[in-house]
Amino acid sequence: MMLDRGLVLMSDTRTNSGVDNISTFRKMYHWSFPGERIISIMTAGNLATTQAVISQLEERTKAPSERHNCLLEAPTMYQVATIIGNLLQDIISTRATDNGQKAAAGTFSASMIVAGQIKGMEPRLYLIYPEGNFIEASYDTPFFQIGETKYGRPILIRGYDRDMSFESAVKLMTVSFDSTLKANLSVGLPLDLLVIGRDEFVPKHERRIDGNDPYFRAISTGWSEALRAALDALPDYRMEQRAYERVR
Amino acid sequence: MMLDRGLVLMSDTRTNSGVDNISTFRKMYHWSFPGERIISIMTAGNLATTQAVISQLEERTKAPSERHNCLLEAPTMYQVATIIGNLLQDIISTRATDNGQKAAAGTFSASMIVAGQIKGMEPRLYLIYPEGNFIEASYDTPFFQIGETKYGRPILIRGYDRDMSFESAVKLMTVSFDSTLKANLSVGLPLDLLVIGRDEFVPKHERRIDGNDPYFRAISTGWSEALRAALDALPDYRMEQRAYERVR
Repeated sequence: MMLDRGLVLMSDTRTNSGVDNISTFRKMYHWSFPGERIISIMTAGNLATTQAVISQLEERTKAPSERHNCLLEAPTMYQVATIIGNLLQDIISTRATDNGQKAAAGTFSASMIVAGQIKGMEPRLYLIYPEGNFIEASYDTPFFQIGETKYGRPILIRGYDRDMSFESAVKLMTVSFDSTLKANLSVGLPLDLLVIGRDEFVPKHERRIDGNDPYFRAISTGWSEALRAALDALPDYRMEQRAYERVR
Repeated sequence: MMLDRGLVLMSDTRTNSGVDNISTFRKMYHWSFPGERIISIMTAGNLATTQAVISQLEERTKAPSERHNCLLEAPTMYQVATIIGNLLQDIISTRATDNGQKAAAGTFSASMIVAGQIKGMEPRLYLIYPEGNFIEASYDTPFFQIGETKYGRPILIRGYDRDMSFESAVKLMTVSFDSTLKANLSVGLPLDLLVIGRDEFVPKHERRIDGNDPYFRAISTGWSEALRAALDALPDYRMEQRAYERVR
C-alpha cells in the first residue's frame, strides 16, 4: 500500500500443496542499503519459483561481477522491477519448457509485489505478473494484492486514504487479512509486516504477527463485533411498505 | 439463505461475454403451487445452459405426459434437486460432446441453487454442481453462493443468525451484494429478491431492486459510512510500543 508517508507491506506465511500439506514460509523479503535504497519483494504462487527468484537476486547482489544487474546497482525502481520481472518470467518458462509446455505454465506460475525507494526518487510500488511485465501503483490505484485477493478487497477500497497514518494503514490491512483468514484456509497466520518511511532507506518497523498477538486478537474480535453493530444500525428492509410487484 | 422462518433468495441480473458485451437477464425463477409446494432456482454460469434447463423444466411442468418427471410431481425436494441436477449435467455434456470435449467442458458450465418446500416437509436449500451432483444446506452451512462468491462472503459469515427476521436477512444480503457490486463489473444491478415463508407455498415477497431504489441507496451509502466509522473505532496499531524484532 502506497501512502503519502511511505509504503506499508503485509503478507501471510501459509503455503500449501493441498489442504493436507500446509507449511509456513516467509513471502516477504527486503534489502536495505542505509542512506541509499530499500527494496522489498512479496511473493505469491509456486514456492519453488519464488524462492528461486529470491535466491538468484541474493546471489547477484553478493557477487561483484553481477553488480551491474542487481538490486544494489539498478539506477531506478523501474529497472529493479524490470530485472525481477525478467528473472521471474525466465524461471517460470524454463521450468515449464523442461516439463513440456502443456500443463506446466500454470503449475510454476507466481506473481510478485515490488516496493521500495532509491535516494532522490519517489517511493514506488509495482505488481509483477508471471509473464514478467508489470504495472505501477498510482494514487488512483494505490494498493496491490496478490494471491487470494477477493475477500479482503472491499474493506481496502473503502478504508484507504493516501494521507492516513502508518498506524491506521496497519489496522486497515490487519482487518483485510482477518476477513481473508476467516474465509480461506490457504491464507494463514503469522503475518509479516514491513513499514517503509519515505526517505528513510531502512525499515521504519518490521514485525511478525502471530495468533497470540494481542493487537491481532483485539482487531479480529473487535472487527467482528463492529461489523455486527454496523449492520444492526442500518435500517432493516421493510417488506410491508413495498408494492407487491410481480416480476415473473 | 435458510432461516428458521423460511428462505431468502437474492440474485443479480448481469450477464456478460467480456466487459464489452453486458446484458441484463433474470437469474431467479420460481414455480408456486399454492397450498402444495414452492420451488425456486437461481443460476450462475453459461446463460444458454441455464436458460435451456429452465425452459425444459417449464415444458415438462406443462406437458401431462412428463408429469412424472417434473417440479410439480416429484415427491420430495431431494428428488426435485436430482431432476434439476441430471438435466443440468445432461445439457452441459451434450453441448460439450457436440463441440468436441476438449475446450468445451468449462465453456458451457453452470451451477444452480434450488430452494423450496413441499407440504408436510421442511424447507430445503441445495447447491447443484455442473456435474449434476449437489449438496444440501444445514444450520452449519446455512447459505449458498454461486457465481462471484468471494467479495460478499465475509459479511455473510459474520452477520448470519438462523433466527433473524426476513427484513434483517434482506439487509444482510443487500450489504453482501453491495460489496460485490463495488468490486466486480460482472455483477450488476438490478437485484431480484424472493422471500419464501415456511409453510406458505406462495411467495411472501418478491421484488426487483434497481439502482434508484431508496432502500438500496440507503444501504449502499450507509454501509460505506458505517464501515469507515467501525474502522475508525478500532484501536490503531502502535509501532512505538513494539519490540523491534528483526525477522530477517
